[in-house]
Amino acid sequence: MTAQEQAPDVEADGYVQPEVDVEAMRALLDGRHREVRDLVRTNLAEHAQVLLDQEQMTTADFRERVKDVVVTMAATGQTGMGFPEEYGGGGDIGASIAAFETLALGDLSVLVKVGVQFGLFGGAVLQLGTKPHHDAYLADLVSGRTMGCFAMTETGHGSNVQALGTVATYDVEAQEFVITTPDDASRKDYIGNAAAHAELAVVFAQLDVAGERHGVHAFVVRIREGGEVVDGVRIEDCGPKMGLNGVDNGRIWFDGLRVPRTALLNQFAEVTPEGRYLSPIDNPNKRFFTMLGTLVQGRVCVGGAGINASKVALAIAIRYAVRRRQFEATDPEQEQVLLDYGMHQRRLLPLVARTYALHFAQEVVAGQLHEVFSGPGPTEEGSDEHARRMLESRAAGTKALGTWHATRTIQECREACGGAGYLSENRFAALKADTDVFTTFEGDNHVLLQLVAKGLLTDYAGEFEEMDQLGMARFVAGLAVDTVVERTAVHKLVQSVRDLLPGGDTWDQEAGLLDPNYQLAMLRFREEHMIGGVARRLKRGIDQKENAGAVFSRVQDHVIAAARAHTERLVLEAFVAKTAELPDGDLKVALNLLCDLHALSTIEADRAWFMEHGRLSSTRSKAISREVNALCRKVRPLARPLVDAFGVPEEMLRSPELMAWGD
Amino acid sequence: MTAQEQAPDVEADGYVQPEVDVEAMRALLDGRHREVRDLVRTNLAEHAQVLLDQEQMTTADFRERVKDVVVTMAATGQTGMGFPEEYGGGGDIGASIAAFETLALGDLSVLVKVGVQFGLFGGAVLQLGTKPHHDAYLADLVSGRTMGCFAMTETGHGSNVQALGTVATYDVEAQEFVITTPDDASRKDYIGNAAAHAELAVVFAQLDVAGERHGVHAFVVRIREGGEVVDGVRIEDCGPKMGLNGVDNGRIWFDGLRVPRTALLNQFAEVTPEGRYLSPIDNPNKRFFTMLGTLVQGRVCVGGAGINASKVALAIAIRYAVRRRQFEATDPEQEQVLLDYGMHQRRLLPLVARTYALHFAQEVVAGQLHEVFSGPGPTEEGSDEHARRMLESRAAGTKALGTWHATRTIQECREACGGAGYLSENRFAALKADTDVFTTFEGDNHVLLQLVAKGLLTDYAGEFEEMDQLGMARFVAGLAVDTVVERTAVHKLVQSVRDLLPGGDTWDQEAGLLDPNYQLAMLRFREEHMIGGVARRLKRGIDQKENAGAVFSRVQDHVIAAARAHTERLVLEAFVAKTAELPDGDLKVALNLLCDLHALSTIEADRAWFMEHGRLSSTRSKAISREVNALCRKVRPLARPLVDAFGVPEEMLRSPELMAWGD
Repeated sequence: MTAQEQAPDVEADGYVQPEVDVEAMRALLDGRHREVRDLVRTNLAEHAQVLLDQEQMTTADFRERVKDVVVTMAATGQTGMGFPEEYGGGGDIGASIAAFETLALGDLSVLVKVGVQFGLFGGAVLQLGTKPHHDAYLADLVSGRTMGCFAMTETGHGSNVQALGTVATYDVEAQEFVITTPDDASRKDYIGNAAAHAELAVVFAQLDVAGERHGVHAFVVRIREGGEVVDGVRIEDCGPKMGLNGVDNGRIWFDGLRVPRTALLNQFAEVTPEGRYLSPIDNPNKRFFTMLGTLVQGRVCVGGAGINASKVALAIAIRYAVRRRQFEATDPEQEQVLLDYGMHQRRLLPLVARTYALHFAQEVVAGQLHEVFSGPGPTEEGSDEHARRMLESRAAGTKALGTWHATRTIQECREACGGAGYLSENRFAALKADTDVFTTFEGDNHVLLQLVAKGLLTDYAGEFEEMDQLGMARFVAGLAVDTVVERTAVHKLVQSVRDLLPGGDTWDQEAGLLDPNYQLAMLRFREEHMIGGVARRLKRGIDQKENAGAVFSRVQDHVIAAARAHTERLVLEAFVAKTAELPDGDLKVALNLLCDLHALSTIEADRAWFMEHGRLSSTRSKAISREVNALCRKVRPLARPLVDAFGVPEEMLRSPELMAWGD
Repeated sequence: MTAQEQAPDVEADGYVQPEVDVEAMRALLDGRHREVRDLVRTNLAEHAQVLLDQEQMTTADFRERVKDVVVTMAATGQTGMGFPEEYGGGGDIGASIAAFETLALGDLSVLVKVGVQFGLFGGAVLQLGTKPHHDAYLADLVSGRTMGCFAMTETGHGSNVQALGTVATYDVEAQEFVITTPDDASRKDYIGNAAAHAELAVVFAQLDVAGERHGVHAFVVRIREGGEVVDGVRIEDCGPKMGLNGVDNGRIWFDGLRVPRTALLNQFAEVTPEGRYLSPIDNPNKRFFTMLGTLVQGRVCVGGAGINASKVALAIAIRYAVRRRQFEATDPEQEQVLLDYGMHQRRLLPLVARTYALHFAQEVVAGQLHEVFSGPGPTEEGSDEHARRMLESRAAGTKALGTWHATRTIQECREACGGAGYLSENRFAALKADTDVFTTFEGDNHVLLQLVAKGLLTDYAGEFEEMDQLGMARFVAGLAVDTVVERTAVHKLVQSVRDLLPGGDTWDQEAGLLDPNYQLAMLRFREEHMIGGVARRLKRGIDQKENAGAVFSRVQDHVIAAARAHTERLVLEAFVAKTAELPDGDLKVALNLLCDLHALSTIEADRAWFMEHGRLSSTRSKAISREVNALCRKVRPLARPLVDAFGVPEEMLRSPELMAWGD
């Protein structure tokens, strides 16, 4: 009998240790897309061999294998959920996100290949193109008969895509665009599907019409014909990568490649045969960011993938931790199970709680995406531009937090499994190597958080996307700080919390640590204070006639911190709301424990800030750390069912060593 | 002209920006073993092709390649520095550490293969064996003619090696030991060199003489003869690993393998032909830990390897960051260099400072190791047992901090290089995958920190190694808390600091942030307070008649934190001492900047604790963060020479993409 089992089920304060019904919890996590998630789970189990192939095949063979798996999965409808039904799709954007997220429980080359083909390439044709493009390409790309790539990033420009170097010049005589790579820094780089499989590419290039530049536009371009690279295009393999070697990343140069006028994906801009440039959006910056905004689904997908990859790592590490024994601790006759060590609980259980929190936060983003994208397009009547900006910001923040969480969680789980965790068959090798780039692609996390901060500071004003860092610094400096703060949604919330809670300005010293209103109020206060701080700092610098960019650079860590605080608040709100709506019962008790553990570990992680800003006494700060430990002990007996509820197919866990020993 | 260049060289407070002489700084870092470090650098450059081979060869071929490189390097004397000259070694333990550390600038399979052959296997024969063993094996193992492995870890026991399952039974009739693997949990696992190359193994097994168990002892055993596995031994390949695939890790089962009586490495214990067990150390626990203690060099080496692998990552990321431009920030005409962004400075420069700090801390450990191991052995007259215990503790702590630093630094550097960092040719892929297990091997970092804490709590009492966790909890609880604290070295230091500094108990509110006495006093206070806290908590739990192990488990995070605080203090002391001994000049100014940056980022990282314990006001805490930012700006112009001074051979940087673009 372990120390845990000896603990009484009913504590002095009337707390009764809940039991977790794995099936019920899984149904809650799977939500309304349970069916498509189960389809993906079935497909993953069916193709489980690909996990082994990843270790054993040559890169060339593995690329073909991954392609085959992708095409086979496409035939089940799994990958086309987001496309219109008339082209063989499922017509359900929410389902497409759910399918993609679930795919992250398996081999991640398959995931990324799906993301490139159906998300980036397919998404660009769907969102940036018009009916002729849809008719020409969608059915074949949905089925996987035609593979494509998304040629945006260049060697010289990854984050700052407005400054891309590739040029598309309109030749009015021939009624063609001529696409050219002016220098090596402008070659397309890291392009998935480019090195081997793509027949088509969506190419982003500076549009030049009659000597006038109109900014970056997208063109659908044939780069291979019957498997051979066409004239005017040169492709080079990026070579071996840290992970994701089932995806064929390549570099592309264009040497005056001629494409018809209709190659321009003309949802947001058109060049007439006689060379007139037309767009419903006059401002070139706004046009560019409206185009980019339609591709937000990619960020939502990567964030979800990071969260789901974390689930695999935790399922393995927790199952190991409740079996593996090491050192006699409580019992001189028997070594103690790892998860009965306080330190081991501290390492893993807050990560389980945070994974639940991020899961529900992701559910909200995916739901909003579904709403926005099932409504009118950005230039159509009734389009809610403010909602689109909010969605983009939320997607950016959740992607950053979800992918950093993956990096951290997988690393901690590997270490918690010791040497066994280092063997490839135990999955951490691939999980770690494959997810590593999630923090970079679909937007570097720091750059994304700056985007979030911009939105916060300008209250998602129509003009905010158009502003570069100099522009934003000047814009914010032009406002009164109070205005910036008052325009934020959080300001109203904080006011109402202050009004509601007894004790006036000392609310936070008296409220119960496990009161979600207290937890939320803390995160809201932090967010509001940080936004105000950034605005104040920018203003002060500009008032002192400093270079706006230099001021921004100096304030940058505050900018990133404010964006992170904002996203943390959204995550906690999502978790609290989800928990609150449950009927009373063990499931709710268990989720409340997790929600408390997540909330208090989040506050604990930044308790220095709260103390610095007068919102936490040192006594109360220490009490929070004690409470986190106490919550870990309460969550401990639930650990196994909590990770079982993630619904990771057994075949995806592999890990014969980690699963089998110590029984 | 960048914003940095516009900054005046002389600031209002008279501070003059120093220039760093790369050669002089490198000489300082290389220290007294410059010659052997340069030999290794030359060897690395000579075999630079191995970095490419790692990507391109099959595992089987790469293993052979790595073996060849190791043997070729051995011929230069590089790998045998630590062995007596009469067997072809260099007779200089300090040089052998320096050589090993420097090897970490190159391919890490080569490093680990060297570590297995010359450190673990060779070290065990040298330290645990006696003259007949030395005569029989050392010359051939130093030259690499005979490869060997170190068969300690078992599937069921990695951290708790006292509980190993393999048994060696003495057969008095045959005057042989019979070695047996009783169950699959007792198979030897993850054993480097075992799957393909080792002819010999040092096998750790429970010694059974006439039915009496004497604990774990080491035997030198032939496992292959002319490349074929011998009868009575079964070996299985561990298969693909996350990294280090040039090392052939395997599993070994023994099925009644008979070895002669002389196979026992009998430095610390002997079995006479007629079956009498003799040892100069009566207590079996003490004997076991004395044996283990002689193998401390492995931990010192791995810690140094982690620190040096970090240097490679930083050299690449900093060189990229001072070339790569992205976004117009200060200048609308030109994009800004990454390292001129405040956030980028924050991400990388404290890691540069910490790498310097750990380098000098490692120099101290390596120096102490050299002293202790060049003196009398642990059972000889004049042996300073206390010094050995201190060394073991310091090696354990530095290994933990050095290897965690590697994991964190390599990850941050990869992310700071964006997508380019993900390509194998840019080195992060291998660095990350290969170093990942450093936090686990030669002792899991958390287990090592517990060892450090044990030493602190018991003041390295002779008996401390013998105690398991239950025993230690009871032992500490039996002491007065004051006794525990007073016995620590830090207690006296803190007292004297308090006495010396003006202002009595408010010393820490008034001292200058850049005063090293202030910085050290803060870390010393934290350490002492944490040790006292652990002792108090253990005592309280035991006084309340709780299970000693359960109490320990609950206090475990405090135990680990105290050990970490202790090691952080040693690291800062080493850096401060190194800086203080330099003559005035730019080098000293530059090192002072780094030392301040390291000290204040260390305090900043744990500022919550200092606030909670009344040693930091919220105002002062914020001032520390501002000072860290200011120090980053001062270090910024030195970044390139500071990483150049690491002396990483150009061939080891590879990274054509990261180095070449953006010029």
